[in-house]
Amino acid sequence: MSPHDLGRIYRSEIEEQPAALERLLEHDAEIASIAAALQSRGPRLIRMVGHGSSDNAASYGVYAFGLLPHWTAMRDSITLTVHYDSPLDLSNSVAIGLSQSGRTPDVVEYLVRARRSGAFTIAITNDPASDLASAAEATIPLEAGSEQAVAATKTYTNTLAALVLLAAHLAGEGARIANGVRRAAEQMAESIPAFARDAEALALPFSYTGRMFVIGRGVEFATAREIALKLLETCRVAAEPLTATDLAHGPVAALDPLFPVWAIASPDATLPAVQEAAQRIRETGATVVASGTAAGAVQGVQYTLPVPAPDEPLLSPLLSVVPGQLFAGALARVRGLDPDAPHGLSKVTLAL
Amino acid sequence: MSPHDLGRIYRSEIEEQPAALERLLEHDAEIASIAAALQSRGPRLIRMVGHGSSDNAASYGVYAFGLLPHWTAMRDSITLTVHYDSPLDLSNSVAIGLSQSGRTPDVVEYLVRARRSGAFTIAITNDPASDLASAAEATIPLEAGSEQAVAATKTYTNTLAALVLLAAHLAGEGARIANGVRRAAEQMAESIPAFARDAEALALPFSYTGRMFVIGRGVEFATAREIALKLLETCRVAAEPLTATDLAHGPVAALDPLFPVWAIASPDATLPAVQEAAQRIRETGATVVASGTAAGAVQGVQYTLPVPAPDEPLLSPLLSVVPGQLFAGALARVRGLDPDAPHGLSKVTLAL
Repeated sequence: MSPHDLGRIYRSEIEEQPAALERLLEHDAEIASIAAALQSRGPRLIRMVGHGSSDNAASYGVYAFGLLPHWTAMRDSITLTVHYDSPLDLSNSVAIGLSQSGRTPDVVEYLVRARRSGAFTIAITNDPASDLASAAEATIPLEAGSEQAVAATKTYTNTLAALVLLAAHLAGEGARIANGVRRAAEQMAESIPAFARDAEALALPFSYTGRMFVIGRGVEFATAREIALKLLETCRVAAEPLTATDLAHGPVAALDPLFPVWAIASPDATLPAVQEAAQRIRETGATVVASGTAAGAVQGVQYTLPVPAPDEPLLSPLLSVVPGQLFAGALARVRGLDPDAPHGLSKVTLAL
Repeated sequence: MSPHDLGRIYRSEIEEQPAALERLLEHDAEIASIAAALQSRGPRLIRMVGHGSSDNAASYGVYAFGLLPHWTAMRDSITLTVHYDSPLDLSNSVAIGLSQSGRTPDVVEYLVRARRSGAFTIAITNDPASDLASAAEATIPLEAGSEQAVAATKTYTNTLAALVLLAAHLAGEGARIANGVRRAAEQMAESIPAFARDAEALALPFSYTGRMFVIGRGVEFATAREIALKLLETCRVAAEPLTATDLAHGPVAALDPLFPVWAIASPDATLPAVQEAAQRIRETGATVVASGTAAGAVQGVQYTLPVPAPDEPLLSPLLSVVPGQLFAGALARVRGLDPDAPHGLSKVTLAL
């Protein structure tokens, strides 16, 4: 395989993301009717479960539900319900199972148990014929199209969009947010060539990097988690996601000039925390890459990967993950690794 | 400073943990009365907030409240309430602010807002005269005694104990769990010399380790998070905590023979997931250290650090963190680093 072929599928799936978002938007009326059914049942606590990229998307769900309908949404413990069989009262809850394949065993089992105990259950999956979809009362099909690369990209961004559309309909803001997602898909399509150039240019100076932190806070913490996971699975970089504030509570002590940090900055109330964290990182001599829609507001960084601002700050994560996806692909190629088929992984994870 | 002095305070505070647990137990009646007040208000959702070691302890709280009174407990988003000012309904909740110093700014602010909006608020802090305690309706004093090393040890284990005692009283199991904590303190005192010998012996082969994963699941996920944080802050190892299952969903691809994994195994329903993860790790050639009360049940590992079983499996995390604390101290000394005062950290973190 020539170096040029490495990650060909991964790269093409990144480029398919705008079209995948458009396909999901065709299901907006179904999402609205799921929201209406959910409203009529009156739960006020949303429990999300998933692993890997799906769990990262759930970190975004916390903010989508918290900021739009002002509902509490949590990443629930699968272990408590599935492994420990603890009789929690799930009856006043919505349980959302997140799995690209719809086959993640403990996510399916969690949804089966949640439904049995009276929760309103929703599957968000790329396979509406999967076990997860069968287990749930309602299914939002991701419509990302077949995803072949092991490292998820378009199923991740479509999971973000499915969560924010559901949250928007619960808040009576469906039309506004659907328009915002549509516009973000256009901005993504316009920006991918520039993102890809930036990512390629950044890969070479990072070719020997073994460790990284990826920081974000609030709506962009999901992005930090997802970019770190892409670097772990495709580039063998020990990349750890942290909130900007948690970095200061210990991990900053590990930094040195060979331990760089990728910081995602949003133009919202979390920006001062990210700016303060960047200042502390600089004092250690570590390289800082600033990305996100407020990348330009982080001072004294070595590299800036700007991201256009979507209509709503809440939609920034749809765009801000893309430079990270592309950087992971470019860095993998520089290292001779194939992001389409990372060592030791398969597309469907059936781990206990 | 001679290499022998490095981490002298950190090490002595580790050794003080059994006595610190005994001091906390003297407040058992106060914890019982807080539980009674909480029962009479009738909330059923517990929201915990903290950073660093306090947030790691909150991961344990999810299981303490889930397994004893069968209440849902979550690590809440501070950002939603404090930075984004989202009007979530917190009135049917218990908000528990966790901060050793009681001075973490956004944790204090979260508790102020939660109380204003009708939550029952509890501070768990080592300083009952702190802002956090003033902000809360009820305070559980950690009674860990003055903690001088920057890397928290005895305030972490006492926070675990405070959470499990509160959970136990909510379940009418206060006496049983208090006895279990007392017995765990005795077991800890008996085991520290052997733990320390094991940790010293392990430090030398790990002296050049730059990256590690620390895995656990269920009740021991908190331990995985806390050991990873000790390694980050005292040894400059890029140590990332993962659940045993999340490891298989991507990060396993980053492993190689120079990227070891510390696995914490409990003799409960999560053991098969940890055993399966250890099998996948071995296939990558990575070194595996098995610790925890079921360390002996993990096959084919290079190093085993056994931990005695407490009266209740739920109390294992009080003991299983200690070999990790001691290993971090020993590894720091081998590297010429001072765990008492890691580079760039101060004891009270006032980050945004």
